Amino acid sequence: MSKIAYLGPEGTFTEEALCRLEPDAERLSCPSIPAALEAVRRGEADGAVVPLENSLEGAITSTLDELASGEHLLITAELLLPVRFSLLARPGTELGYVKRVITHQAAHTQCRGFLARELPDAVVISAASTAAAAQEVSLPGSPYDAAIAAPIAGERYGLVEVASDIGDRTDTETRFVLVRRPGPPPPPTGADRTSLVVFLADDHPGALLEMLTEFSVRGVNLTRIESRPTGNGIGNYFFHFDFEGHVADARVGEAISGLHRVCEKVRFLGSYPRADRVAPQIKRGTTDAEYAEAAEWLERIRTGRF
Amino acid sequence: MSKIAYLGPEGTFTEEALCRLEPDAERLSCPSIPAALEAVRRGEADGAVVPLENSLEGAITSTLDELASGEHLLITAELLLPVRFSLLARPGTELGYVKRVITHQAAHTQCRGFLARELPDAVVISAASTAAAAQEVSLPGSPYDAAIAAPIAGERYGLVEVASDIGDRTDTETRFVLVRRPGPPPPPTGADRTSLVVFLADDHPGALLEMLTEFSVRGVNLTRIESRPTGNGIGNYFFHFDFEGHVADARVGEAISGLHRVCEKVRFLGSYPRADRVAPQIKRGTTDAEYAEAAEWLERIRTGRF
Amino acid sequence: MSKIAYLGPEGTFTEEALCRLEPDAERLSCPSIPAALEAVRRGEADGAVVPLENSLEGAITSTLDELASGEHLLITAELLLPVRFSLLARPGTELGYVKRVITHQAAHTQCRGFLARELPDAVVISAASTAAAAQEVSLPGSPYDAAIAAPIAGERYGLVEVASDIGDRTDTETRFVLVRRPGPPPPPTGADRTSLVVFLADDHPGALLEMLTEFSVRGVNLTRIESRPTGNGIGNYFFHFDFEGHVADARVGEAISGLHRVCEKVRFLGSYPRADRVAPQIKRGTTDAEYAEAAEWLERIRTGRF
Amino acid sequence: MSKIAYLGPEGTFTEEALCRLEPDAERLSCPSIPAALEAVRRGEADGAVVPLENSLEGAITSTLDELASGEHLLITAELLLPVRFSLLARPGTELGYVKRVITHQAAHTQCRGFLARELPDAVVISAASTAAAAQEVSLPGSPYDAAIAAPIAGERYGLVEVASDIGDRTDTETRFVLVRRPGPPPPPTGADRTSLVVFLADDHPGALLEMLTEFSVRGVNLTRIESRPTGNGIGNYFFHFDFEGHVADARVGEAISGLHRVCEKVRFLGSYPRADRVAPQIKRGTTDAEYAEAAEWLERIRTGRF
Repeated sequence: MSKIAYLGPEGTFTEEALCRLEPDAERLSCPSIPAALEAVRRGEADGAVVPLENSLEGAITSTLDELASGEHLLITAELLLPVRFSLLARPGTELGYVKRVITHQAAHTQCRGFLARELPDAVVISAASTAAAAQEVSLPGSPYDAAIAAPIAGERYGLVEVASDIGDRTDTETRFVLVRRPGPPPPPTGADRTSLVVFLADDHPGALLEMLTEFSVRGVNLTRIESRPTGNGIGNYFFHFDFEGHVADARVGEAISGLHRVCEKVRFLGSYPRADRVAPQIKRGTTDAEYAEAAEWLERIRTGRF
Repeated sequence: MSKIAYLGPEGTFTEEALCRLEPDAERLSCPSIPAALEAVRRGEADGAVVPLENSLEGAITSTLDELASGEHLLITAELLLPVRFSLLARPGTELGYVKRVITHQAAHTQCRGFLARELPDAVVISAASTAAAAQEVSLPGSPYDAAIAAPIAGERYGLVEVASDIGDRTDTETRFVLVRRPGPPPPPTGADRTSLVVFLADDHPGALLEMLTEFSVRGVNLTRIESRPTGNGIGNYFFHFDFEGHVADARVGEAISGLHRVCEKVRFLGSYPRADRVAPQIKRGTTDAEYAEAAEWLERIRTGRF
Repeated sequence: MSKIAYLGPEGTFTEEALCRLEPDAERLSCPSIPAALEAVRRGEADGAVVPLENSLEGAITSTLDELASGEHLLITAELLLPVRFSLLARPGTELGYVKRVITHQAAHTQCRGFLARELPDAVVISAASTAAAAQEVSLPGSPYDAAIAAPIAGERYGLVEVASDIGDRTDTETRFVLVRRPGPPPPPTGADRTSLVVFLADDHPGALLEMLTEFSVRGVNLTRIESRPTGNGIGNYFFHFDFEGHVADARVGEAISGLHRVCEKVRFLGSYPRADRVAPQIKRGTTDAEYAEAAEWLERIRTGRF
Repeated sequence: MSKIAYLGPEGTFTEEALCRLEPDAERLSCPSIPAALEAVRRGEADGAVVPLENSLEGAITSTLDELASGEHLLITAELLLPVRFSLLARPGTELGYVKRVITHQAAHTQCRGFLARELPDAVVISAASTAAAAQEVSLPGSPYDAAIAAPIAGERYGLVEVASDIGDRTDTETRFVLVRRPGPPPPPTGADRTSLVVFLADDHPGALLEMLTEFSVRGVNLTRIESRPTGNGIGNYFFHFDFEGHVADARVGEAISGLHRVCEKVRFLGSYPRADRVAPQIKRGTTDAEYAEAAEWLERIRTGRF
């Protein structure tokens, strides 16, 4: 049975994502995203599920940065998980009694409307994760009255829902990825996504435009771009790109080879089926068949057979 | 005397930045970045100092998101502040005794080497800010033994430095900005930066390339790009741009007018002197004089005087 | 009454174009395109009609080169004229008797099918124009039996049509322009064309791409590009551009001002109604109203009123 | 011995170019450029030398159009030939006596200064070529007094130089190419040129920009672009491109394969040593070695070995 690490403790959204992505896997709770990824790198787990971005909070920078350095890892699947928050407390707690709430900063932000409306006087303390918050509340003698966390956290820690679905928005979702040690990517499905990390050769004006042109000229559509600091002072960034298509596609292969040639370093993070199953619009002249035909044509003219 | 809000409590790096940017201002400590900015919007402060990005952690997304929505605010100055961490404790505490450390998540990340080396068994708890961590430690009966925070926080909260300069890197810096209510931007200095928020009209393939082309065709060099989620589901982003030059420059004016025409919404965040005083390399044909001469030429040919 | 020069002698396609463009004008026959344009420059004529391009032969380089140098002239109108050739001879001549044909080189090329089929043994001699050929045939003692020329040339020189519509293609057309001395261009009609000559600042790689980007970023569509030698050795070219829109349009004004700034020299040749009345597809954000709104917005943010 | 066709008759600049390109070849004079190329296509000659462009007159459109259609031909060499004109007449003719001059139109244009200065009253008649003009003058009973032609034409037709080097400019040159039936191109020399004909898929706005981007993104520098009419009405063009590099170069191969994929039709005209021996400036990331390394990298990530 495969063992998959995740950002724990038990009861996190990440655990829920793992249950959906790999229902039969043995689950290994880890205290942090780096720890979950290290477990894979060291062979203690066969894979890890980590959050990559949230539709309200944006990128999970810890994941981005961990994937960009250290030993290579490969994203093999993604999942979009709707985010539902509950206010969880020890049995018997009433809403009016809640004075000290603990939760993750992001959950705090996303439940501001509820907190302002229902608990205007409550103090909100930050925890490392929503599940850690729930766990904290479940401890005997906890100084906290309630946690904002995923419903699953209530089950895991014996808490009850004082209020449910308390997020300001009901359409929030988090994108999770399953990463494994390097190997062949999963086969193309026709609706795939590829992720890449790119370090510029030198940060000249127009370098970003040049990178995007490497994609556009091959008809490869970007779906996400994130800049991250290289650590070498303000003004120096590297980039995470997500784009449509699979590394096995000719157009994707040529585009990322182009980046590899002109950039300082390109790290391939994986090609995997899109969670939303959206197939790309393919620009004229960029199908595999058209690439193959062009390669034949080139071979013919190079050898004088035309 | 002008009153400037900042991300408190007392003893934050932000307070230090404020002291440098506006030494004579009255300082108003605020519990969060949104609170500091709201204080300006509501007229309770004349300005606010908030962090925008850190050379290790990247963008301060709370600042980015707050500036992108709500009532307009204007960045009028920036500052680059070196980041120096100290391990602060109540007088009499020895390093060997420290078991529970509290600090902000970012400081935790940046002091990992020190913690692994010197305090391998210590538990590290997250606080809302490094100053809050110091304050927490200073409270009688605090469950924490030490805080990782700015040296200034030690002074403010009566703590002593058990260890200083404990960051893994010594070249880390944070970029702070001073924002005020809308008004004319400070005059051009020849080494200015302009910040902008851009919402795409529709997220078609190539939209980002088009935006960058609006800059490049006028010889305006980007210095930073950040994507942020619009909140409307994974895959929908808006952008923060920093670029060289001042809104009063002809080339900058034309470039951002171009963005204004082709994008859904452009929010001007300000033009202000660069902290590093680096003047831009100006591309042929993009000086104000060349713009003026071209405008005259156009007027002549439109009216038949050539 | 206005006097308009044209590429003579009487009986040319150019004369026919002039009759259509300016039916009431006095016509001044000139021996060459340069002569016709010089007549305008010197004030001997109020305008000149000259061919600019032919759908089979391409650019009329003499016209391109004459408009690109010397005193400025302004194109104020264009006309598309179908090209119809006749075989013209002195009365009494029969097709079988024709052994020596005279015509302009272009007409020769365009009637190759007819010549090969009907007059396989005939010698074809080049004349300066089809009308000159007809005139030559009309002279007593002419060594030529027939001319290939416009039907109008038969009327002017007393020749008869031995065969008509003898071109290999029936859809050939020539584009003529009416040029005048500099003055305000005719007002926009909504379906206009603008012509320009551009000399590069330095012929660096990518210079042409940069020029085209100046157009595309403002949504201005090119309809024709011609390179011409500068005269300074093989490898040095200047460019003629035709594009959609009128110099009075904001997007056109900005695009050509951009070229004026970054190129060595830009010569405006005129904005005039398109002969085919095709209105441009206007890219989002490039109407005059959108330009005006963006200018207002820029003014507001520059002065702090936002 | 190889037999090479050329644009005759004897005494043309083209014959001179042939003598320099292939001194030992048997020369086959042809009455026109199309005839010279047809001689190669039909196997009557092993190659043909034809002019491609002139530094004053521009493209030799007949050559461009003939190479773009019909059976494929391959350019295997190019030559830059300085253009020197002489006024040639039958022995005994004095300059003052010359009343009727015959020459090719281009020579006429290039000797305007001399004609205006020395022979202001002379009539100038057009011939198919400068050599044909010289031949015409050499005929007993010729109505012409002198020809403007290459010095070599005097030798061939028994004429004497009444005046030499009479061109308005002394730096004029013509670029000739040697074409053969399809076969492998000559091997790369490090300073090569490649010629191509491109028909657009559909003439949408921005199509030309897209084509140029296919070159620029691979660091391939254009040296010449010519638009030619497709014959299907004004406004429809195809393009001749000359650019640096050899079809055997990886970057050139990828660029022209890209054009082949996105354009209606691409015709390869050949890769051959540049006459001026200028080696290209190679953009970072576009050498063959860098291409090979990128291909290996791509293969590794596609198969999971990274």
